[in-house]
Amino acid sequence: MTQTQPQALYGPVAEDLILVEDLLESVKRVDLAPLRLMLDHALAPRGKRLRPALVLLAGTFGDYNLNRLVPLGTAIELLHTASLVHDDVVDGATSRRGRPTANAVFDNALTVLLGDFMFANAAEMVTRTGSLPVTRLFALALMKMTNGELDQDSAAFDVGRDVQHYLWRIGGKTAALFGHSTQGGALLAGCSEGQVEALRSYGYNLGMAFQIVDDILDFTGDEAEMGKPAGGDLLEGTITLPALFYLETAPGENPVRSFLAADGDRAAFLPEALAAVVASDAIGRAQGMAQEFVDRALEGLSTLEATDARRTLEELSSYVLTRRS
Amino acid sequence: MTQTQPQALYGPVAEDLILVEDLLESVKRVDLAPLRLMLDHALAPRGKRLRPALVLLAGTFGDYNLNRLVPLGTAIELLHTASLVHDDVVDGATSRRGRPTANAVFDNALTVLLGDFMFANAAEMVTRTGSLPVTRLFALALMKMTNGELDQDSAAFDVGRDVQHYLWRIGGKTAALFGHSTQGGALLAGCSEGQVEALRSYGYNLGMAFQIVDDILDFTGDEAEMGKPAGGDLLEGTITLPALFYLETAPGENPVRSFLAADGDRAAFLPEALAAVVASDAIGRAQGMAQEFVDRALEGLSTLEATDARRTLEELSSYVLTRRS
Repeated sequence: MTQTQPQALYGPVAEDLILVEDLLESVKRVDLAPLRLMLDHALAPRGKRLRPALVLLAGTFGDYNLNRLVPLGTAIELLHTASLVHDDVVDGATSRRGRPTANAVFDNALTVLLGDFMFANAAEMVTRTGSLPVTRLFALALMKMTNGELDQDSAAFDVGRDVQHYLWRIGGKTAALFGHSTQGGALLAGCSEGQVEALRSYGYNLGMAFQIVDDILDFTGDEAEMGKPAGGDLLEGTITLPALFYLETAPGENPVRSFLAADGDRAAFLPEALAAVVASDAIGRAQGMAQEFVDRALEGLSTLEATDARRTLEELSSYVLTRRS
Repeated sequence: MTQTQPQALYGPVAEDLILVEDLLESVKRVDLAPLRLMLDHALAPRGKRLRPALVLLAGTFGDYNLNRLVPLGTAIELLHTASLVHDDVVDGATSRRGRPTANAVFDNALTVLLGDFMFANAAEMVTRTGSLPVTRLFALALMKMTNGELDQDSAAFDVGRDVQHYLWRIGGKTAALFGHSTQGGALLAGCSEGQVEALRSYGYNLGMAFQIVDDILDFTGDEAEMGKPAGGDLLEGTITLPALFYLETAPGENPVRSFLAADGDRAAFLPEALAAVVASDAIGRAQGMAQEFVDRALEGLSTLEATDARRTLEELSSYVLTRRS
């Protein structure tokens, strides 16, 4: 099965994304040599730049002013990358997308400060949009993201949480920033209230589907394609949707429960736990829920004019469901 | 010698600082229990709230609108506290102002996220001022702070830096946010360009003096008054002004150089290194330089109307020089 390249999916805004890349490049030009080295590593152009694409696509529904949209797209990508940099410190992760993480190359202390610098840069960048409301929503999105991450960390290995709780967490951790991408783009373009809400809802629900698929791939993904070994979430005690669905249908003793309760060498129990989830109907149910969020995302879109950008957003929702890395 | 209480020094704005305290309290009211616990710890009302006081005092020179000034003061205090929370993680510090640090009570991972949440909160808070330029300057101040911290960490134990470099670093690490406090307060109050610049210059130069005195106290301070043992900077390899002045006048082998070059149990060399600096003229020279920055701060003030607030700012500059913790 060949994988559609996301770049091909960005349609009418694909070329303009180069401006986001240029602005990200400019962020790396700092005087302090160790910082320059770290920014180079963290901002290597390997990401899909999905969030900046959403900003620009949303902006096409109004006044498509790149002087305002490109800084927002860049700010959101910086914020997203900064949060990954800190998450990798928090999780002690050593690789991401097939490359060593910043904390694996530099040390934890410098990597915390690298993330802080990127957050500051993101905040400065978003003010270049000239919009205080968009700047404010941006800060609120970061609060929700951190709240979600904090919840994930403090609830590690706790089997007492339910699907509702999981959805609340990924809403903060991931979907809030997706929602802000489309909402912010629409606001900057001067879209109508109805358009802004339709695009925000599209982005938020796409983000929910995106995170659920991410969590499924942590069970079913191919290490070579993912750039990291499977089972990372469970190993950190993060109980995602497939594990939750599995635990619901297998309430007694089972390999996932044994893994989570294990003392000492927990990793030895991991392969069996992963296999049990994959062999159950939990993956299929999680895929079904991702599909439901995509359906809601498309519902938002249906109220908008049938433009190239709308078709691109529709295709992106299929890509999010079928992606393999 | 009795110590003047800073609260008594805040003169005409002392009572209004309660509004900053109230707004900080409101920040602690979050749903997520572990986060609430951590915010309670980090935002305990032990700080001097010097930066919020500067915001309000600067604001008295124009339209003293507390609806705009209080959010800025609160945002700056949040930003300052968040950066201390991360610095303590970065330095592995276990106590500050006589209390265990957040990373000593909770774990490093959660403490990184606590700092992120506070940064996000600070960013949201500054947008409540209603001023995009002030929000933008706020982000720039954070960039300078992180830049200064990164420089400090990456230059640890490096004896090849000079006084010029030290001043550049503390300009970013500390003085930028002091300067933003008075500049931001003046901007929000609609002060004239000349007033804004006079107040910015006062704040920046006061911040320079403040940091130099902080660095002197790390050599001469009393552990009970400081709430942390002396010599912490040197132990982390941070070569501050007293050590720089000492190294300048003692170019050959000396206890500070031996300490910095020591392998293994470096701490054993610390008492002799501290004693050598304290016995030299380095402390006096550093105090002289702090006085120079205070003189520059007062120069800025001299162009302003002779109000109660101006007298309070003048007194604050003496307090900064004579404080013992």
